[in-house]
Amino acid sequence: MNLKLAIGVTAGTLTAIAAAPQIFKAIKTKKVAHVSPLMFIILMAGNGLWCWYGIVLKDWPIIITNSFSLAMDLIMLFLKGRYSKNVSGNAI
Amino acid sequence: MNLKLAIGVTAGTLTAIAAAPQIFKAIKTKKVAHVSPLMFIILMAGNGLWCWYGIVLKDWPIIITNSFSLAMDLIMLFLKGRYSKNVSGNAI
Repeated sequence: MNLKLAIGVTAGTLTAIAAAPQIFKAIKTKKVAHVSPLMFIILMAGNGLWCWYGIVLKDWPIIITNSFSLAMDLIMLFLKGRYSKNVSGNAI
Repeated sequence: MNLKLAIGVTAGTLTAIAAAPQIFKAIKTKKVAHVSPLMFIILMAGNGLWCWYGIVLKDWPIIITNSFSLAMDLIMLFLKGRYSKNVSGNAI
């Protein structure tokens, strides 16, 4: 595996899985009041465009990793919507 | 500006500024308990590697945007550290 591909795959994997701790924290605590939904909406738009960028470049590390990021953003937005009503802090 | 550059700059700008709403929310509310610090640590590592990827490719959209993301991640981690002690929810 050449250096460029190794860096791209590692960078993409890290940025793709970055939302995972936030997702697990939301599921565990069911508290998301302090998390900004706008951040994940903007991330979704950006990651969507990065997928397109990868397609134009035919660059697989960029395509695969940003598709995964997109899915993570969607999951986090779903959790934000679901647990936002949980203002009282009680488990649902 | 060709299509590839336009997509790259737009995608990079969106992912670079994505953390901004979370940063403003943290500064405004001084509440960060529900935000995962590990997410921003992993993002920092990923964005750092994307900078290196851009350097290897000599691809300016990737270098500039990911350096900006790196700075945003650092700011958010600083705020997480600073306001985490604010467990009582009172303004400091």
